[in-house]
Amino acid sequence: MKQLALIAALPLLLAMQAPAAPQSPAEIVAATTEEDWRPVLPENLLVMTLGDGAEVLIELAPGFAPIHVANIRRLAREGWYDGISINRVQDNYVVQWGDATNSKALPEGIEREPPAEYDFPMSDLFLSAFSNVQDGHYEQYSGYLEGWPVGHSPREDGVRSGTLVHCYGMVGAGRGNDPDTGTGAELYTVIGHAPRHLDRNIALVGRVIAGIEHLSSLPRGTGPLGFYEDEEQRVPIASVRLASELDAALQPRFEVLRTDSEAFRAYVDARANRTGWFVRPAGAVDVCNVNLPIRRAVTD
Amino acid sequence: MKQLALIAALPLLLAMQAPAAPQSPAEIVAATTEEDWRPVLPENLLVMTLGDGAEVLIELAPGFAPIHVANIRRLAREGWYDGISINRVQDNYVVQWGDATNSKALPEGIEREPPAEYDFPMSDLFLSAFSNVQDGHYEQYSGYLEGWPVGHSPREDGVRSGTLVHCYGMVGAGRGNDPDTGTGAELYTVIGHAPRHLDRNIALVGRVIAGIEHLSSLPRGTGPLGFYEDEEQRVPIASVRLASELDAALQPRFEVLRTDSEAFRAYVDARANRTGWFVRPAGAVDVCNVNLPIRRAVTD
Repeated sequence: MKQLALIAALPLLLAMQAPAAPQSPAEIVAATTEEDWRPVLPENLLVMTLGDGAEVLIELAPGFAPIHVANIRRLAREGWYDGISINRVQDNYVVQWGDATNSKALPEGIEREPPAEYDFPMSDLFLSAFSNVQDGHYEQYSGYLEGWPVGHSPREDGVRSGTLVHCYGMVGAGRGNDPDTGTGAELYTVIGHAPRHLDRNIALVGRVIAGIEHLSSLPRGTGPLGFYEDEEQRVPIASVRLASELDAALQPRFEVLRTDSEAFRAYVDARANRTGWFVRPAGAVDVCNVNLPIRRAVTD
Repeated sequence: MKQLALIAALPLLLAMQAPAAPQSPAEIVAATTEEDWRPVLPENLLVMTLGDGAEVLIELAPGFAPIHVANIRRLAREGWYDGISINRVQDNYVVQWGDATNSKALPEGIEREPPAEYDFPMSDLFLSAFSNVQDGHYEQYSGYLEGWPVGHSPREDGVRSGTLVHCYGMVGAGRGNDPDTGTGAELYTVIGHAPRHLDRNIALVGRVIAGIEHLSSLPRGTGPLGFYEDEEQRVPIASVRLASELDAALQPRFEVLRTDSEAFRAYVDARANRTGWFVRPAGAVDVCNVNLPIRRAVTD
């Protein structure tokens, strides 16, 4: 089969071009050292197992939505998510899961009206660790902070305000009309073009780091907003566990490329200026097209 | 079921707010007149029927890629696409279909080395019909022209150059490493965050206007670039027909909101400044988040 691939790697051609040839994103990743990566901590890793055994791994973002994440950890520890279902799959938008019957009582200790953790002050420390990718459009700057897609702009009161960005695979806490109604019991992930109009309007709590294809390939719901119309269409969730509660040998281990590293900056530049099959490099890359390198760690 | 919807319509509340209340995108569309819409012409409409009977409708863009579109019309008329298959589904990227066996001879009259129809000069007429949505980032301006997502920037030689934009659902002609190798026999559509680094690098020839969920929900391929590894995983395409070749009564009829209309400008503004459930309107909208209104026409 002649593969008319959109992207054809040309390792031989590049090798022949010798020293001045720019490195491809893959070559930059291959040349990283262990110091260029940070681990995904087991207490920040959710293992969601669907009814058919497929696993979806979600890294939580306690640095940005601490109260929502505390709720989610508690819900996972208590086994509250076990037996809920995926109830909504809207094309080019979101997959959403929760208690479709709305009959499960929340465990003790859950904050029922968490604050609207939609943004945060960009401290000097944050600013120094921020790697800008994209100027303007939605935010003054959009880039990466501690491995997360973040935008920041000055507020009217002079404070510089940051927000997580709704890139593909980001996970948020569904809410009702009041900003403090998202407990973390109802979650969604983005499966389409980044809906950045949701930034600063709902709490992002993490992102899918493996297995998103088990969510994005689900049949689309045909009801309003992509909700499944029939109970039988709902996709069961067998369990959601914090990796830190699993036996050490069973804990999935992942690493994220450090976004304050030289390697990350070179990687972003290479993503913006692709070679090989490309005729005209774009010269730019959208914050949600960076495809931040995340890898399964080699176990010792 | 308490639906913790991401977007909750508030028609009653809005109705009570009376004259000054901004209109929602849906209200603006509801208030359009017939003159605000242009038809999808039957000679520009492909009806792709999958093996299970599901239909995917594709509007062709002869104004932007005339030679590729001429090839595609001829391939459809000759029945060349019938019996090919979907061979690649890469998450957050593309679905691609063609002749996996690479054994089908192309019909007579197919241009085998079409020019690289990746961009075009922005004439004064085009500039006057262009509705800008987004300044900067990839292109100096990104917006809509004759119902299509288009970016444009000045070239080094002073010519203002336009290009179709790789939004979700746009359809392009796969090619090999040489720019003139995409005949239209191998096609792809975008099923993820707009890969705008492909703009000006490959010919966009149209877009899916209905049924994309039959493509975007397919199982992801596990081979390199998301190709299916086993022949049995390929998804058969029963037929691809031009609507103009069908009996008039069987021709699907669709309409696109005119993008040089006041209604479109109001719609884009409303998309950028959402009300109701939203706490903080974004104040901006990505060219690929406009969600251009396309509707099934009422038959007479």
